[in-house]
Amino acid sequence: MRLTASPIAASALGVLVLAAAPSPAGDLRGYSADAAKVEREWETKFRAIPSPDSLREYMRHLAARPHHVGSPYDKANAEWILAKFKSFGLDAQIETFDVLFPTPKERVVELVAPTKFVAKLQEPPLPGDPTSGQQAEQLPTYNAYSVDGDVTASLVYVNYGVPADYERLERLGISVKGAIVIARYFGSWRGIKPKVAAEHGAIGCLIYSDPRDDGYTQGDVYPHGPWRPRDGVQRGSVMDMPVYPGDPLTPGVGATKDAKRLATAEAQTITKIPVLPISYGDAQPLLAALAGPTAPDEWRGGLGITYHVGPGPAKVHLRVKSDWSLKPLYDVIARIPGASAPDEWIIRGNHHDAWVNGAEDPISGQAPLLEEARAYGELLKQGWKPRRTIVYAAWDGEEPALLGSTEWVEAHADELAHKAVAYLNSDTNGRGYLSLAGSHTLEKFINDVARDIEDPETKLTVWKRNQLRAVATARTSEARDEARRRADLRIGALGSGSDYTPFLQHVGIASLNLGYGGEDGGGIYHSIYDDFKWYTTFDDTSFVYGRALAQTMGTAVMRLAGADLLPYDFTGLAETVGRYAREVEKLLKDTQDSVREQNRQIDEGVFSATNDPREPLVPPAKEAIPPYLNFAELDNAVDALTRAADRYDKALAKAESNGGAALAKPEAKALNATLLQSERALTIADGLPRRPWYRHQVYAPGFYTGYGVKTLPGVREAIEQKNWKEADAQIPRVARALGAETDLINRAAEQLEKLAP
Amino acid sequence: MRLTASPIAASALGVLVLAAAPSPAGDLRGYSADAAKVEREWETKFRAIPSPDSLREYMRHLAARPHHVGSPYDKANAEWILAKFKSFGLDAQIETFDVLFPTPKERVVELVAPTKFVAKLQEPPLPGDPTSGQQAEQLPTYNAYSVDGDVTASLVYVNYGVPADYERLERLGISVKGAIVIARYFGSWRGIKPKVAAEHGAIGCLIYSDPRDDGYTQGDVYPHGPWRPRDGVQRGSVMDMPVYPGDPLTPGVGATKDAKRLATAEAQTITKIPVLPISYGDAQPLLAALAGPTAPDEWRGGLGITYHVGPGPAKVHLRVKSDWSLKPLYDVIARIPGASAPDEWIIRGNHHDAWVNGAEDPISGQAPLLEEARAYGELLKQGWKPRRTIVYAAWDGEEPALLGSTEWVEAHADELAHKAVAYLNSDTNGRGYLSLAGSHTLEKFINDVARDIEDPETKLTVWKRNQLRAVATARTSEARDEARRRADLRIGALGSGSDYTPFLQHVGIASLNLGYGGEDGGGIYHSIYDDFKWYTTFDDTSFVYGRALAQTMGTAVMRLAGADLLPYDFTGLAETVGRYAREVEKLLKDTQDSVREQNRQIDEGVFSATNDPREPLVPPAKEAIPPYLNFAELDNAVDALTRAADRYDKALAKAESNGGAALAKPEAKALNATLLQSERALTIADGLPRRPWYRHQVYAPGFYTGYGVKTLPGVREAIEQKNWKEADAQIPRVARALGAETDLINRAAEQLEKLAP
Repeated sequence: MRLTASPIAASALGVLVLAAAPSPAGDLRGYSADAAKVEREWETKFRAIPSPDSLREYMRHLAARPHHVGSPYDKANAEWILAKFKSFGLDAQIETFDVLFPTPKERVVELVAPTKFVAKLQEPPLPGDPTSGQQAEQLPTYNAYSVDGDVTASLVYVNYGVPADYERLERLGISVKGAIVIARYFGSWRGIKPKVAAEHGAIGCLIYSDPRDDGYTQGDVYPHGPWRPRDGVQRGSVMDMPVYPGDPLTPGVGATKDAKRLATAEAQTITKIPVLPISYGDAQPLLAALAGPTAPDEWRGGLGITYHVGPGPAKVHLRVKSDWSLKPLYDVIARIPGASAPDEWIIRGNHHDAWVNGAEDPISGQAPLLEEARAYGELLKQGWKPRRTIVYAAWDGEEPALLGSTEWVEAHADELAHKAVAYLNSDTNGRGYLSLAGSHTLEKFINDVARDIEDPETKLTVWKRNQLRAVATARTSEARDEARRRADLRIGALGSGSDYTPFLQHVGIASLNLGYGGEDGGGIYHSIYDDFKWYTTFDDTSFVYGRALAQTMGTAVMRLAGADLLPYDFTGLAETVGRYAREVEKLLKDTQDSVREQNRQIDEGVFSATNDPREPLVPPAKEAIPPYLNFAELDNAVDALTRAADRYDKALAKAESNGGAALAKPEAKALNATLLQSERALTIADGLPRRPWYRHQVYAPGFYTGYGVKTLPGVREAIEQKNWKEADAQIPRVARALGAETDLINRAAEQLEKLAP
Repeated sequence: MRLTASPIAASALGVLVLAAAPSPAGDLRGYSADAAKVEREWETKFRAIPSPDSLREYMRHLAARPHHVGSPYDKANAEWILAKFKSFGLDAQIETFDVLFPTPKERVVELVAPTKFVAKLQEPPLPGDPTSGQQAEQLPTYNAYSVDGDVTASLVYVNYGVPADYERLERLGISVKGAIVIARYFGSWRGIKPKVAAEHGAIGCLIYSDPRDDGYTQGDVYPHGPWRPRDGVQRGSVMDMPVYPGDPLTPGVGATKDAKRLATAEAQTITKIPVLPISYGDAQPLLAALAGPTAPDEWRGGLGITYHVGPGPAKVHLRVKSDWSLKPLYDVIARIPGASAPDEWIIRGNHHDAWVNGAEDPISGQAPLLEEARAYGELLKQGWKPRRTIVYAAWDGEEPALLGSTEWVEAHADELAHKAVAYLNSDTNGRGYLSLAGSHTLEKFINDVARDIEDPETKLTVWKRNQLRAVATARTSEARDEARRRADLRIGALGSGSDYTPFLQHVGIASLNLGYGGEDGGGIYHSIYDDFKWYTTFDDTSFVYGRALAQTMGTAVMRLAGADLLPYDFTGLAETVGRYAREVEKLLKDTQDSVREQNRQIDEGVFSATNDPREPLVPPAKEAIPPYLNFAELDNAVDALTRAADRYDKALAKAESNGGAALAKPEAKALNATLLQSERALTIADGLPRRPWYRHQVYAPGFYTGYGVKTLPGVREAIEQKNWKEADAQIPRVARALGAETDLINRAAEQLEKLAP
């Protein structure tokens, strides 16, 4: 029924060998048949509204000048967005916070031996790109939250600067103690690089964009192509956000005017060593001046040189000094009050601040958000009355440290914990495939939304295009088979890197992060070249994917806001958590096997036999075999969760039968109140080891990946760090959170069973 | 017993978890206990003789001037080697042939649009490298056996220029018809590149050394390091040797003075289109001038440019003209007549000609050969009397086309077919691990030799060092387990690329190709920088691996020459051929699966769904599913071979018991006569499809790899080419050869059973 109701689903019927969309009892999950019909009509109206021309004009305005935190145009944009929301007929206001945001005062990178070279640290304006010449307003190239420092030392090349790279250096017999390291971007979130370097005794850190990852090796460079030119630099935060994001001086509380603040010296999240980012133009003379071992094969980039590791003879002077004053944040918040459940909130956000002009990051995501709001304004005029409250947020200060979203969430944590149903985030948007990540309680829900959106290029549904890509790119026949047969496409788990983090991982609000992309590459990220000219030449030039994002996000928000019953699903959650549990169990086994094998090879003399005397390696040392851990509590918790999820699912199927009239009963309100807490149940108040701000027990950014997710993070990271005692202590905590979730689901199932006996 | 008898085997006893050497009934395979004791004493004396200083002086002399075919120093070197053999007390002479060997008269490569650039085509002399300045005697940079031509056309970059690259181009919608292609070295033997280019309609071919494969990306360039400098060029033959090697005008017969010759125009093995090799210095402006699609990720090299595929706007003019006169070859042949079995020959060879000075290629292998001969001279003076005839050969003309060895083998084919026991080849030598490849009937034999040679760096046996490296580099736990537990290390199968080819693949003589290496890289291959200065700065600088090669080769030759019973083993052959049979069967199944999967994806719309309209790809076409083939004959033949091998093995064990006195019986002579034909049984007189010169049914160089081996080539290549009719016809032919081998082994087993009833 739904398939024919959807104007475009017919195209998905062509290929019957692929899994057809599942047929739930009702037409829309959580809707009675009558409500679904009405909802579908509003959604169809909604999706007709977003216009590429509007998106283009929003971008032209918002990206017209540099608009980083504290800049005049950042404030002007907030006020412009506020005025837009109001002009759409929405209730809106600006909420302000005052946060520590350092801006550069002094920056020096120079080679002082064996030859002299002074790094330019400057991105040149390009003819034909008008905004690239706005130098007076541009933030210089720097890494925010680098500690001030002035150091001179030998240089060591550390590849991506992740822990595995330092293990490799150890085999090469090279220490970075007292050295300045130069790491290339990628391989981890950038903030990990100075953190790991400092842990190994380095006294300074340079981060550069290698042309192999982000320059001419990838494709023609700007302005001839979309890739990073020789002097382009990636700005960005290096705050230790895996400990906590947001204002370093107000962890856990909103940075309001009178909030209690730490002294800057007390802030845990500022780097331990000075850091600056540089271009490959500036990096080449430094890297070319290194001697020592030839860099391992995978460490070699695209510069026309032989990559050496050092240390020295290259000696570098690095100086960084910032203005550490507080800067104001302007979050713009609009609300559409819910008609019958005003205390159940659907929150949708995208940041508006940028490092410079930020056409792609973040305006390509902010513009659709505004267009969704405009469309809602029109629907409201036509009589649309969403059941729940819809909150639209244009965050400030995402770039430095998720500042605007984090401070807002911290300031409103109690209210959010009582009212938030879901948070839907976007950040940047481009051409290609819908990227789907978030809470697995929403996996089925967002798959259904994706089945109702048309891909602008292929005219398939975005779901079908994603599925066919999954078939094309599957690495194993099992994965291909799953892509063909599983009712839903798997959604990714969220680590960090955008504003969903405080919602999901601090308060425990079911979240989704969506965006289109995958067809266009580009190397203007966090540079002055990320601007209207670049975006409209090389990315979603006709803004049809901007429209698709508005259609996707807007449909999801409306559908969540209008459902009789909150459309969470727990079977996908249980299955996914079960996979994670098997992964961590396998991780332990693989670690045991690899330690055992390495010890055996040491005994056999493998390392001395294969050591080249001209390029000697330090042999690894024998290690204790990791102990077996008691995973029984985790396994039992997963089993119980699975049973509860199945029970809820059966009860739902029953409630959805016969037109789902049961869902429309007034008693559904109490059931929704239970369901609304379901993601919260997965958190524990005192959070993860050494980072209590992160409370979610299923998803967290990795302590040593930064953006990359670690699922079941307490257990997984303890195993990765070979901290067996901690791993042993974390298993029951995860089991406790899963147990709380199980209890909640069983309560919900009981309520549902009563609703439709 | 053998372990303690060997002066160095004790060091292998340290680690008992690894497989110990097997304990055959006798001390040396094929020797009675008494004979083994005597043999061991001679071998120990032998291995004490080779001297690094001698090797250094041989190299200094032989690499002192350019010595390609037809040059004065090539002839002078042959005469010097002859004199050396004679001075060692050996009977020696020079055998000459006259062969077609083109040398360049005109060479032009120039970019004529969109800008002008004339390629230098010249390697500059380097200060501090005295022989690099011998320009008057150096062969210019060129590819021998390129047809003459003068073409101007658009340029297309074809990556390595192998068939898979053209499939990729087809997906990109790019044709090379009427174009000049530029391919990088590596990925196949160089002669494949113009062959495949011509098959696709190209009219000219450039081959360049990319710095990623062979230049600064690999390491510091000469003279600062061992890698190829900006203007270094790899010369080399592009003759279509997978059809037949040797003189193009005398296929199958020796190119003696009065041999019947084809006209040059009739020679099948000369390229169809003109070809020249260039340096990366010369290639950069050409590649930088290409537009069209960005090259696929794996196609991008180490030049500081964005790699594009073209075609054009780069337009190139290529002109090649050669002197096609006949040139003389000087093979130097020394003989030590066998004392009791003079008509059983052990042949050992290495070429002496080079592209220029050739210190590494071939003198690093030629010098040990001379040192082995010197040591034999000393042993002969001390009363050593090898049972069989030993033939030592310094081949001319290997570089252009295995000319010296091929013409000699063709001229002596009948005699060799009657007398040859084995051919042992080396070519270049360096620091590191013993590379072991050859006939699997000699797998056990050469493993045993490797157990008796000391690795100069680790003082382990070279066998043990190889085993531990196999443990270290195993990609699967099964492979690691095999490295630990299998009695013998597997030896590689031989394709082509050196002088064993006519022996093994034309006549069917059990062959081995040995050399040390793997620790030092370098990029001077076939350039003027492959000289004494380079070798003694960057490679086996103390010549201890040269000594190890002389010890390894000399021991192998002596042990083959002295054995009571020829030490072939058939169980390893049977096991290995069984693996090959399973491989080709799996190849068919994988091809069926992949065609089936691709057809399914075409039906599903995967290719249109994942097509980026800005970078459109041509969708693949549906293909017929490959048929099932009847492998029963092959499987039955493998089974019969396995049973015969086991029978022979049991009979041998019995004969070796009680001191192996049975082996010394006069009747062993007839058994040896049977065994001597064992590799011949694996050949078929009319050879492989479209290349009858290649007669071996188990090993051949690939028609589209050139050097890389194809095992069970008739069947495997037919499946690879999707020529199902041919595959069907080839299976019984392979089965027939295996059947002939099985019959021979059963006859030998019967003889052996009678010898030791």
